[in-house]
Amino acid sequence: MKIIIVGGVAGGASCAARLRRLDEKVEILMVERGPYVSYANCGLPYHVGGTIEQESSLLVATEQMFRALFTVDCRTSCEVVGIDAKLKTVELKNHLTGEVTTEKYDKLLLSPGSAPIRPPLPGIDLPGIFSVRTVPDARNIKAWLDRDVDRSVGNSFTGNDTISKPKQAVVVGGGFIGLEMVENFIERGLKVTLVEKLNQVMPPLDPEMARLVEGYLKKHGVNVELSDGVAGFRKSATGSLEVLTESGKAHPADIVVLAIGVRPETALAKMAGIEIGKLGGMRVDEQMRTSDQDIFAVGDAVEVKNFVTGEWALIPLAGPANRQGRIVADVIAGRNSRFRGTQGTSICKLFDAAIAQTGVSEKQLIGLGDTDYEKIYLYPNSHAGYYPGAKLLPMKVIFRKSSGLVLGAQILGEDGVPKRIDSFAMAIQMGCTIYDLEESELCYAPPYGTGKDPVNFAGMIAANILRGDMPVCHWDTLGNDFLLDVRNPPEIAAEAVPGAFNIPLPQLRARLDELPRDREIAVFCRSAQRSYYATRILLQNGFKVRNISGSMLSRSHRAGN
Amino acid sequence: MKIIIVGGVAGGASCAARLRRLDEKVEILMVERGPYVSYANCGLPYHVGGTIEQESSLLVATEQMFRALFTVDCRTSCEVVGIDAKLKTVELKNHLTGEVTTEKYDKLLLSPGSAPIRPPLPGIDLPGIFSVRTVPDARNIKAWLDRDVDRSVGNSFTGNDTISKPKQAVVVGGGFIGLEMVENFIERGLKVTLVEKLNQVMPPLDPEMARLVEGYLKKHGVNVELSDGVAGFRKSATGSLEVLTESGKAHPADIVVLAIGVRPETALAKMAGIEIGKLGGMRVDEQMRTSDQDIFAVGDAVEVKNFVTGEWALIPLAGPANRQGRIVADVIAGRNSRFRGTQGTSICKLFDAAIAQTGVSEKQLIGLGDTDYEKIYLYPNSHAGYYPGAKLLPMKVIFRKSSGLVLGAQILGEDGVPKRIDSFAMAIQMGCTIYDLEESELCYAPPYGTGKDPVNFAGMIAANILRGDMPVCHWDTLGNDFLLDVRNPPEIAAEAVPGAFNIPLPQLRARLDELPRDREIAVFCRSAQRSYYATRILLQNGFKVRNISGSMLSRSHRAGN
Repeated sequence: MKIIIVGGVAGGASCAARLRRLDEKVEILMVERGPYVSYANCGLPYHVGGTIEQESSLLVATEQMFRALFTVDCRTSCEVVGIDAKLKTVELKNHLTGEVTTEKYDKLLLSPGSAPIRPPLPGIDLPGIFSVRTVPDARNIKAWLDRDVDRSVGNSFTGNDTISKPKQAVVVGGGFIGLEMVENFIERGLKVTLVEKLNQVMPPLDPEMARLVEGYLKKHGVNVELSDGVAGFRKSATGSLEVLTESGKAHPADIVVLAIGVRPETALAKMAGIEIGKLGGMRVDEQMRTSDQDIFAVGDAVEVKNFVTGEWALIPLAGPANRQGRIVADVIAGRNSRFRGTQGTSICKLFDAAIAQTGVSEKQLIGLGDTDYEKIYLYPNSHAGYYPGAKLLPMKVIFRKSSGLVLGAQILGEDGVPKRIDSFAMAIQMGCTIYDLEESELCYAPPYGTGKDPVNFAGMIAANILRGDMPVCHWDTLGNDFLLDVRNPPEIAAEAVPGAFNIPLPQLRARLDELPRDREIAVFCRSAQRSYYATRILLQNGFKVRNISGSMLSRSHRAGN
Repeated sequence: MKIIIVGGVAGGASCAARLRRLDEKVEILMVERGPYVSYANCGLPYHVGGTIEQESSLLVATEQMFRALFTVDCRTSCEVVGIDAKLKTVELKNHLTGEVTTEKYDKLLLSPGSAPIRPPLPGIDLPGIFSVRTVPDARNIKAWLDRDVDRSVGNSFTGNDTISKPKQAVVVGGGFIGLEMVENFIERGLKVTLVEKLNQVMPPLDPEMARLVEGYLKKHGVNVELSDGVAGFRKSATGSLEVLTESGKAHPADIVVLAIGVRPETALAKMAGIEIGKLGGMRVDEQMRTSDQDIFAVGDAVEVKNFVTGEWALIPLAGPANRQGRIVADVIAGRNSRFRGTQGTSICKLFDAAIAQTGVSEKQLIGLGDTDYEKIYLYPNSHAGYYPGAKLLPMKVIFRKSSGLVLGAQILGEDGVPKRIDSFAMAIQMGCTIYDLEESELCYAPPYGTGKDPVNFAGMIAANILRGDMPVCHWDTLGNDFLLDVRNPPEIAAEAVPGAFNIPLPQLRARLDELPRDREIAVFCRSAQRSYYATRILLQNGFKVRNISGSMLSRSHRAGN
């Protein structure tokens, strides 16, 4: 039995190591086109930024290690240039010697990953325009930045600016890699413009949550240009680059990073004649088997089911790739492992903040025409307010209206994000309802949480809605509601909402006769807590009332503050 | 309908607020013996240490707030001195005026909390011996420390030590409060001796995990005295205190804190004639109703079911108290809420580390005679090793041998503990198996995690055991096993295990004939990963072999390193 694994990074390397553990006798050949196997591509932006100092830190496992520990015939700089699925052979080209050989397989695993999208725009091949996908990519970016420093009359520490010193970066694309590169360029002291074709950064988030990220970028001095695609690149009169946009702008740049997404590598799949899905990834079953029974595929190059929505998705993330690699090893070794799909859990560091999500977003639901959901916005403290360092933790939680099932969560903030998103991730995996979240017993001590954790709060708020205790509404769907502001006068003096009627909460019970009984009342305060109390008072006094979820905090957050 | 709530901190205050939200009309009287309602007793150690500067920060809600926002008749410094459960009346004593009044109730909630245990030891009433339970306690400790500074010739910053300057604290009891006080005394520059009667600190942990906490305390300069109870206290010749122990030691102390646990306050329960459980807490049903249908009880003073073991437990924590208070409000308002029990989730900050647990411990299972479990030790990186700041995350995970159900987790470390313990907490709540943990899709980016999260690793290791892929054993139960060390010579030179035979993993396949076929082989390396590979090689070659869980890391951790 001989297995050939094409691609030696996350999914391929995981499969090779596990398969050897399961079967001492199977013959394993793992080929990798690039110079390194099992390298940490997630670390590349931080190597560019200098947080990860040594390039060697990124090399998690080596060709030699696969040979010595796993008796895997591991070959780097070795590319598959042909597949004959009928004969079950691959043609391998050794890029160091130029030699081409043919190898027979019993089972083939394709783990080719994805390639950065590089649209054929004018000037795209100009020097100084980079992608961030491989160790050599990072090395080239660093060399470009360092070379410029060497060329400059002064250096970056003397303030002796010259035209050749890199001081302005343009990052194209506001997803994970784009934001990580923005941060790392800023860490290196560059000015950064972020150009994004969509009307939001961080596409997995819903737009109103992304607004907060946009505001955070701006606070850190980033020039954020949304809703403007790149039209091309050119060399400016001074010798540096310019990024030209569809709206006609020209952004100067000493370096450009393209981070507009990745495209599944399917050249091999096409050679092998296997089925490609609608999103452009290889189509696989739950055991990661392609349309050819002897060819498996994993990682960025396959389409997977989002198990919350049941829809196909491209999820170019390390965690699922590793799991899929293990599953292929299991299946080849005769076990009945299955990939349960993905729920799209992800997190991204941005300066002191983390941006995370799991499950489905509202825009995904809208795209599916799914209306059986409700959403809440909340802004709890990340830990006990009286313990130093507590931060507001903006959260959006989406749940089934009919059943209470937790569907998705989006959380941003400077403290405690991983703790909460992983609670939601586990909750969604296990089919948790918002009623379960009310009762979750999560860890609490003042430095880490609150007696009622933000996750509990989310459950309580959502349960209040579904139990009918707190009808809810949102700023963007207010109709002809009577707007009631139950904050205190100093808060309103600081920021008023035009047209809102004010009764401070402590006076509400005594002033009910000032409110209309024939209109829907939409009530708000700062965080929607006092307005929840107000909602309860008004409901029990026969008013038609809804609480504006997230209240003023949600309003200012939509403004990017 | 009139409700009287006795005790205005966590559980009582939660009930009052929720009950008002559910019912505008019910009459609510909340009495609190102390001067403050709803104060943050969890923050008291940090106020003593100076991390929380202002005492006022600890006052979460005030009597005035309960009156104005919740129309709750809230009375502080007001104690219940009598209950007549037949007449449904309580006698209230106003401590400010001395006045005693009688109030009638329809429903009564007892939320009296617990009292610090103060055994009647010789000298226990000497000045300078404190508990940490209330705001006045913290104030008294601070005053004691500050008074001594004032009296000293110099001050603590000039190094002008005098006998009256507080420099030595003794903390009695190594649980949560004890450890928090140790940390906060160290933060204030005191030397600290910790005296604990048990043979371990942090009683919720299993002893071998507590050993690591003990080592950590010692690294921070704490003198840890285990297995030695306090026999009494006396004034020394120099005017400071001495803590006398059962073994005959005398520990000098300028201040002593007693943190040897709390005892449910059941004086009221006895007045009312309601049932007390075997652990000394009030016995309640799932709706927090005592043996008297019109009297409810919540918080530290009740016994609750550990829903993992089904056993009664005393859980003096804020989270469950808050939830119970809400449940009582629901039930009084005619709703069918039930307390699902507790799973003992807790966390404690200790210098840069966090110590956390959820579910059951091994010693609880042993106490129950439950042998249907297995355990693993693992030491994964808290986040990607190549990203700065990654720390080893010692974990013990306990699971059902028969079903794979996750039973408990104990996690310590300087990074990423809350993220992982909450994943386990949610997993245990939802009846997750270790097979589910293998597949959990938790958030990953290099600053926060690893492509396979520590929680996934725990699932994979446990599943390897239950699937028969990796028989496991532990250092403390090795029998006549042949000890095989698959580390490399330099590692062994640094720390050898007496009697172990060495074959470095890369040589193992070629040297199988050096190993016995008639004995159990127990194999280890540094972290149990290479020894897992070795286990797989040996198993497939017909050897009887088990992997030593946690390997050298577990061994040195048991030594407190």
